[in-house]
Amino acid sequence: MADETTPRLRIAVVGTGLIGGSILLRLHEAGNDVLGWDPQPAARAAAARRRVPFNDRLDVTLKGRDVVFLCGPLRALPESLTEVARLADDGCVITDVGSTKAEIADHAARLGLADRFIPGHPMAGTEKAGLDSAIGSLYDSAPWVLCPSSTDALPGFRLLTRLIIENFGARVVPMEPRAHDAVVALSSHIPHILAGALAGAAAGSAVKQAVLALAAGSFKDGTRVAGTPSSRTADMLISNRAAVVAQLDLVRAVLDGLVASLADADDAELLRRLQVGRGLREELLDRSMLPVTRSFDLARDDQAELDFLRRLGGDGGYVTGQETDATTVTYTALATR
Amino acid sequence: MADETTPRLRIAVVGTGLIGGSILLRLHEAGNDVLGWDPQPAARAAAARRRVPFNDRLDVTLKGRDVVFLCGPLRALPESLTEVARLADDGCVITDVGSTKAEIADHAARLGLADRFIPGHPMAGTEKAGLDSAIGSLYDSAPWVLCPSSTDALPGFRLLTRLIIENFGARVVPMEPRAHDAVVALSSHIPHILAGALAGAAAGSAVKQAVLALAAGSFKDGTRVAGTPSSRTADMLISNRAAVVAQLDLVRAVLDGLVASLADADDAELLRRLQVGRGLREELLDRSMLPVTRSFDLARDDQAELDFLRRLGGDGGYVTGQETDATTVTYTALATR
Repeated sequence: MADETTPRLRIAVVGTGLIGGSILLRLHEAGNDVLGWDPQPAARAAAARRRVPFNDRLDVTLKGRDVVFLCGPLRALPESLTEVARLADDGCVITDVGSTKAEIADHAARLGLADRFIPGHPMAGTEKAGLDSAIGSLYDSAPWVLCPSSTDALPGFRLLTRLIIENFGARVVPMEPRAHDAVVALSSHIPHILAGALAGAAAGSAVKQAVLALAAGSFKDGTRVAGTPSSRTADMLISNRAAVVAQLDLVRAVLDGLVASLADADDAELLRRLQVGRGLREELLDRSMLPVTRSFDLARDDQAELDFLRRLGGDGGYVTGQETDATTVTYTALATR
Repeated sequence: MADETTPRLRIAVVGTGLIGGSILLRLHEAGNDVLGWDPQPAARAAAARRRVPFNDRLDVTLKGRDVVFLCGPLRALPESLTEVARLADDGCVITDVGSTKAEIADHAARLGLADRFIPGHPMAGTEKAGLDSAIGSLYDSAPWVLCPSSTDALPGFRLLTRLIIENFGARVVPMEPRAHDAVVALSSHIPHILAGALAGAAAGSAVKQAVLALAAGSFKDGTRVAGTPSSRTADMLISNRAAVVAQLDLVRAVLDGLVASLADADDAELLRRLQVGRGLREELLDRSMLPVTRSFDLARDDQAELDFLRRLGGDGGYVTGQETDATTVTYTALATR
């Protein structure tokens, strides 16, 4: 990472499983000063195998670092953040990679970290686990949500945005934490519940073996994420409980409408409802975006900058680049049409 | 297709879209005497491009044929069957490829065809359409359901079973038509409704653009079949209305249970319910089968043979081979453990 206005960044990655390991691997490959740490004793040997810098002591790993990526299981993140904030230097910018953002953002606010903890969510993964499965290119073109909590968090957000775009080629999506959680409830969490319902119904069916024998592609796709370790899925759902339950009302209402039109033999209405879903699917495969450039005065446009960023991400757009000089910050972005 | 007890079979394929075209292509490649026909004027040129035998007249195509594969849209199959049965030779065995079986089986019974029409359902496909997209290997290792309606249909069933195994390498799954329809309601049709509900909910969401921007793999997989042409999905659901609506009660009950344990913060129960679905997914990926061989006296074991076949397929097994001599029919099969 090179930046005209700051010296070379010193970075730490705390938790070097699949996600943290992939971040560590890419940051190291790209020539950054980066150091990994993990509570698992096996991580040192894995780090040696992948030839990435690693230290056995958390305090040594964090000392003098400018940026920390906080990784590891969702459930452990609040306690990890408390510990890392205690050990890290005062000016250090911290971000995390958890799949929900309101809970950790609230925890950070209670710790007085809202200005330098920027909740994050890089949205890619595999079914595998551990540093041995890490992939340096995991976040190429992936959405990477960042949630600055207020204008005080903008300096940390700007620094992370450049670091992430330059090193990972990811799409930085700025969002308010609760807006993020409402969106991923539908775009990630509820699909896990529907897959669980379909797989669970098949498990309880009197004709289970025949269902397995005649499983079509639709069934295989529709149950795939039911194969995710159940405790990981449960933690994700539990940490986003309110948003998931609220969005489920919408999904179940649409499901009820489809079922009613089928059961009532209202075939024209059934077709119309199916066409709505097909239209969404076509939009997913062919999103239409517009390039946007916006500049803000660093001395007095903080609120306008934060509003622009949250609106951009909340509407489905993302930041493609960011430049800062002595007086001005300039974003290039792709916004939905 | 070679058979010790019959001369070389003459085969016709009526309807040469993706499915019929793939059947025609493979039967031709394998050296059979086969001829295709299609009501679409463009089909002749497509047949020339794919170098498969084709005739413009249905009556000429059917004359002197031993076996007819009746393909084409599900909705058109009953009328097609009536027409083909009228034009084909008296002893000709007819099968179809529709995705539901009770409706067409009942129609055939009303036409007095129950002994020589064997409802069929080869279970593979692609999102594409037309003979130009046909693939000779489409049914390699795929389940191919055949539904003999009574012992009178066994001679036709035996002939089709050998033809399908020898030419397509498919897994012949014998089932009662209504049992088939109940199973595919869960293994194929309901996944389309769930995909439609998820896609429809996203389409109606206030944060639709952000949902598209943050669509995880779970969302992409969970909505994939919502991209199927809606009229094709609607026809499939409508032709299996009763079974789909009945099985949906089970799926919705499992969904309600998952939602309730999440909403009520009964996290142990949520985990337990997710584990049921995960277990099903593991069974799907690692099915345990046992080889079975069974022989039946052609003069007096018809009912035992039909019972064996329906139980085999209804329990998730399939026929891997069939031999017939002057007195005995012998099946090899894989049965669920």
